[in-house]
Amino acid sequence: MKCTVIRLADGRELRYYDERDDAVRAAVDRRDLAGPPPASQLRYDPLTDEWVTIAGHRQGRTFLPAPDECPLCPSTADRSTEVPADDYDVVVFENRFPALGGRSGPAGGDPLATPYSPVRPGTGRCEVVCFTAEHDASFADLSPDRVRTVLDVLADRTVELSAMPGVEQVFCFENRGVEIGVTLHHPHGQIYALPFVTPRTRTLLGAARRHHAATGRHLLADVLAAERAAGVRVVAANAHWTAYVPAAARWPVEVQLTPHRRVPDIPALDDAERAAFGPLYLDLLRRLDGLFGVPMPYVSAWHQAPVRVDRELAHLYLQLFSVRRAPGRLKYLAGTESAMGMFVNDVLPEEAARLLRAAEPRTRGVVGGRG
Amino acid sequence: MKCTVIRLADGRELRYYDERDDAVRAAVDRRDLAGPPPASQLRYDPLTDEWVTIAGHRQGRTFLPAPDECPLCPSTADRSTEVPADDYDVVVFENRFPALGGRSGPAGGDPLATPYSPVRPGTGRCEVVCFTAEHDASFADLSPDRVRTVLDVLADRTVELSAMPGVEQVFCFENRGVEIGVTLHHPHGQIYALPFVTPRTRTLLGAARRHHAATGRHLLADVLAAERAAGVRVVAANAHWTAYVPAAARWPVEVQLTPHRRVPDIPALDDAERAAFGPLYLDLLRRLDGLFGVPMPYVSAWHQAPVRVDRELAHLYLQLFSVRRAPGRLKYLAGTESAMGMFVNDVLPEEAARLLRAAEPRTRGVVGGRG
Repeated sequence: MKCTVIRLADGRELRYYDERDDAVRAAVDRRDLAGPPPASQLRYDPLTDEWVTIAGHRQGRTFLPAPDECPLCPSTADRSTEVPADDYDVVVFENRFPALGGRSGPAGGDPLATPYSPVRPGTGRCEVVCFTAEHDASFADLSPDRVRTVLDVLADRTVELSAMPGVEQVFCFENRGVEIGVTLHHPHGQIYALPFVTPRTRTLLGAARRHHAATGRHLLADVLAAERAAGVRVVAANAHWTAYVPAAARWPVEVQLTPHRRVPDIPALDDAERAAFGPLYLDLLRRLDGLFGVPMPYVSAWHQAPVRVDRELAHLYLQLFSVRRAPGRLKYLAGTESAMGMFVNDVLPEEAARLLRAAEPRTRGVVGGRG
Repeated sequence: MKCTVIRLADGRELRYYDERDDAVRAAVDRRDLAGPPPASQLRYDPLTDEWVTIAGHRQGRTFLPAPDECPLCPSTADRSTEVPADDYDVVVFENRFPALGGRSGPAGGDPLATPYSPVRPGTGRCEVVCFTAEHDASFADLSPDRVRTVLDVLADRTVELSAMPGVEQVFCFENRGVEIGVTLHHPHGQIYALPFVTPRTRTLLGAARRHHAATGRHLLADVLAAERAAGVRVVAANAHWTAYVPAAARWPVEVQLTPHRRVPDIPALDDAERAAFGPLYLDLLRRLDGLFGVPMPYVSAWHQAPVRVDRELAHLYLQLFSVRRAPGRLKYLAGTESAMGMFVNDVLPEEAARLLRAAEPRTRGVVGGRG
């Protein structure tokens, strides 16, 4: 894999990750772009002890452009996109409308703060990862080799972003489907380099810490062993990974894809683990699309250890879930979930696992990579 | 206010709350209904130390019926609904498709549990509150007197449900709008009598406890005083309540309506506080509908103290929020919020407060009550 770094017209970094080591990336971004966006703010919510990101400039971001206006496609002679080249394997670039890490304007020390709600600058970095140049593909259409490239890219980005001053956690994820508000259809993921440890990660680490103090063992390792022994919720597995529906799943479709070896983050995965990931994950995604016969909206979220703290407690896993509970039916987060954090799931986890095991995998073809 | 309790055809309780003390409620439910639904399950998620409700039977619940099939309208000579009478003021009845408190079938001791994910019966109770017999009204159309009746009903239900064995918290809320998945348009709220303290309430109490230990003061009382002093986020206020946008608001439209006196729950509100609530809340709801010129989808959630614990730490408030961030634009919860609990809000809280103060209140008329 060869990485070439260029600057876009407004100064943002773009990285080509090429599967061929002889790739040459000389194309120049000739657009006339406005300067970097204003910085966002972090505001402290004292009632919950959590930081909230306020990013007022994002209201104007690109919203469901026509296919021939897609900013993630390669550039052509007639049209300049976010990617100057006329083709690419995988590219990563700084988000033009970042929730964090905007670079102009004042941020902290806001006079609108109160003693209980301090404000600080929304530092960090938001990156976009394009998985393929093919606009109409989806992640499920990638080749295993391309998935390996993507995983290596996420590892590379996690290492580099973790070294940035003030970054406490790196969050890699993919949102897919208009049903969950995706505003660009081109297959892409996102990477957030965060200046705090997220609320969910703090919760996970708290439970892991209590379990370790009580038993001397690692919580997710114990849960994984129990799920593999029970079997009824396991969807698929290989020598290095097991995919299972959690016993207390919150979502109608939810799978945890967990490496058998406890590692803190993606960079810590070894070669065999990385190679084994793609075929299993692709099988899962294709089963999701086969479940109801229509492309499944989903969130795919890597739970990585924080950069500085509790790395010995964390156990990397991928959380894959969907709001679709039946054809034509979505799960919405309303009062119980959004106000009280209390989830009601209308689908039995064992039934969800059975349906996923029985689903016919669907893909429209294989895209990218050498395989 | 007069309360009359009857039984529906399948044994569920229904309560008429009449504003006239001479109301007679003799109508009988003549439907042929199947027995009570199967019990749901609570499953423990060890990774987060939270209970998740699994309610497999709810997949078949009523979904967006035609107006002439509404189960919450009064019954007519030709059609029997959930309410046997031909008119009503406010009624409360047990949900036919409850997330908690179903009464048939086995529940706990599930052999599918693992040592890390215990299962217990989904005890508790889910009730529906119809605010008015008028199908096309909304809460914003109610008279202040009717709002007072509704508040008195919520107080009555909170007291009674809190006395049920095993109930740890009573959650009163309204979900409004198809945008957040509401399946019945008739104006109604819900009451959950919960066999656990919700994750969000535990979080709120944890922060309140730390603040009290450090300062000897109450956190929300301090926040309220700071917001009243700052003023910039206050939307409306009267002698007993202040409505403000939280400094670290998570939602594009979010208001906390907080009583000046610290009380643990709705039953503890005195007569003057109850009388002062309706006009202010109606003004808020009508501003929400005026903000974008279309009915605003919203969640309105009462944060009450748990039944048994930490009542001296809790401070009642109403959280009112919407997923609408602009006309034709919704905020979706995807990877950052749903996987990591990290909220990104695209609207400045001070700007949201300014827009709400400037909004022209909208209502289609005044419904119910004596006023």
